[in-house]
Amino acid sequence: MRAAVMRGGTLVADELPDPEPRRGEVLVRTLACGICGSDLHVLEHTEQFAEASRALSGSSLDPGRDLVMGHEFCAEILDHGPGTAGTLPVGTRVCSMPTLIRDGAIAAVGFSHDFPGGYAERMVLTEALLLPVPNGLATERAALTEPMAVGWHAVAMARLAPDDVPLVIGCGPVGLAVVAALKHLGAGPIIAADFSPARRKLAEIMGADIVIDPAHHSPYMSWEDAARASAQGRRAEINPLSGERLLPPGVFFECVGVPGVIDQMMAGAARGCRFVVVGVCMEQDQVRPLLGIVKELNLQFVLGYTPEEFAVTLHHIAQGNLPVEPLITGRVGIDAVAGAFADLKSPERHAKILVEPWRT
Amino acid sequence: MRAAVMRGGTLVADELPDPEPRRGEVLVRTLACGICGSDLHVLEHTEQFAEASRALSGSSLDPGRDLVMGHEFCAEILDHGPGTAGTLPVGTRVCSMPTLIRDGAIAAVGFSHDFPGGYAERMVLTEALLLPVPNGLATERAALTEPMAVGWHAVAMARLAPDDVPLVIGCGPVGLAVVAALKHLGAGPIIAADFSPARRKLAEIMGADIVIDPAHHSPYMSWEDAARASAQGRRAEINPLSGERLLPPGVFFECVGVPGVIDQMMAGAARGCRFVVVGVCMEQDQVRPLLGIVKELNLQFVLGYTPEEFAVTLHHIAQGNLPVEPLITGRVGIDAVAGAFADLKSPERHAKILVEPWRT
Repeated sequence: MRAAVMRGGTLVADELPDPEPRRGEVLVRTLACGICGSDLHVLEHTEQFAEASRALSGSSLDPGRDLVMGHEFCAEILDHGPGTAGTLPVGTRVCSMPTLIRDGAIAAVGFSHDFPGGYAERMVLTEALLLPVPNGLATERAALTEPMAVGWHAVAMARLAPDDVPLVIGCGPVGLAVVAALKHLGAGPIIAADFSPARRKLAEIMGADIVIDPAHHSPYMSWEDAARASAQGRRAEINPLSGERLLPPGVFFECVGVPGVIDQMMAGAARGCRFVVVGVCMEQDQVRPLLGIVKELNLQFVLGYTPEEFAVTLHHIAQGNLPVEPLITGRVGIDAVAGAFADLKSPERHAKILVEPWRT
Repeated sequence: MRAAVMRGGTLVADELPDPEPRRGEVLVRTLACGICGSDLHVLEHTEQFAEASRALSGSSLDPGRDLVMGHEFCAEILDHGPGTAGTLPVGTRVCSMPTLIRDGAIAAVGFSHDFPGGYAERMVLTEALLLPVPNGLATERAALTEPMAVGWHAVAMARLAPDDVPLVIGCGPVGLAVVAALKHLGAGPIIAADFSPARRKLAEIMGADIVIDPAHHSPYMSWEDAARASAQGRRAEINPLSGERLLPPGVFFECVGVPGVIDQMMAGAARGCRFVVVGVCMEQDQVRPLLGIVKELNLQFVLGYTPEEFAVTLHHIAQGNLPVEPLITGRVGIDAVAGAFADLKSPERHAKILVEPWRT
């Protein structure tokens, strides 16, 4: 099969042997697979990622070996391996968490040398994790389930209360997925900040009520203004000592994932603010704990989603509750994956590029 | 009046004018006042503390001006200022949050140039915040209300569930107050770690079930062992993908407050662990966000207590629900405050030293 292979720090199109489904597994044909920011990170900082994943999960990613990435996919069943139930017939379009369970061990599809991800024509997947794509849902929209589930999970972990006023820092695909989940749940006003005009435009389309260019306005001052306005007419809590009217609780989503952002947000936050850290910062970071202490901040780090959240996200996409089409800014075949990775570095040009391995 | 005055980076005993109670204030005689770790920090790093408090709260601590510290006190009413209700007669022993409200502004008694704290013979306090010391409760025990309320609040902010297994890192007065609050609430097994044998001994007395010397055993491995044992026979959550039995949720209390400890605890924590950061680290700190992300950790920074928590803590001390006598390892008069500050640097010799300004 054809695949875009990470080899020696670059992406090359090459021919690989087809994977073979073992017990409880199915062979699928990849229909569409989104390129994720983590994939860009892995390509650029392979050693760092390998070291981090080794230290944290004991996985054995070897920068010297071939890797086929791609973990945001929609696929079509080609064949059932041994010991499968076969409930979903050949030809069924499916989504799956990018997780494969073989011999009781869990592997990350798209981050494993043994299980090629969606930048290849074929994959093997665990039958028990397959979700059929509802009739009428376009393949490319179903392929967005994975990144949208990341945002859905982040918002679930925020344990939103009716008064909470959310601020989303960073409007890449993760931040946009957070905005969409917040909007569907009726939270608001939703404030979203990004330096890129194109991403701010997308944030509006996804449901942000107020979009901020941090080059010209402080997202934190804008949040305070919006929170104060939102508190008008609602039951307001009062500081028992000073009699001062308290701002409604802030829920800040960190969707950038580079060093310095958490501390900057801690400096900007109001008292009692809750953070959900969704951006994946792989480097050492500097923070001033005193900022957190004096304001009694809460930082919830999050990763991924539960199987239930993944299924619910697919359902909401199918129902039209989570807009995803605006995110798709490009489609490429296997030969053009390397170029797509380069293009994705510009936030002005792209949000989500889909790899369609069948495309020539 | 006599007072131990911080002046030019040292503590000197000196004569100061008596403070005068204004509208809604009372004049009190200090009976006992604990020396807090923050006071040691302020004496050693005055500039750093002044800068931090300026940046964070807009307070104007001036290292060049005299400061009378002391914010953990029990006192006796000497006189009522104008516009007071006088409900508590002269001679009543009282505790109060170290907070003074004058002209609608809030000042921190013991960290303000305008309001001398408990290292002086007399103070002015806000009448509305006074709590009478219950009959029969010894003055020195009542004086421990403030530090015990810090621990009480930290545990309240942890939102304990019945299965939670707590780990307390650092057994200075703050860590010991956390242990006592956990014990009273029935949490357990309580694991507590400190390098000092004397403090480990105190942790046992305050209610720790397992005490760890981090020089010889990893507190995190010990926590895992205890959590696994505690999970036996309880309803256990199962990882839906791997079928693995999950450990009960960890609640880790950071009661050290020096750089590096939060990151170390993040490295040691199990998945889903909640942190309560009670130790006050005033410096820049380094953390690896990826540790938090991969384990979905939650960090709750906390500070102080609410007026209700302060009152509840005094009540529990009076009821004998929170042991405090073991913490008191010394008593000094004003002339010996400087020496007591020096002595407190050794965790083997002291936990809490009370200043009794009337003592000669």
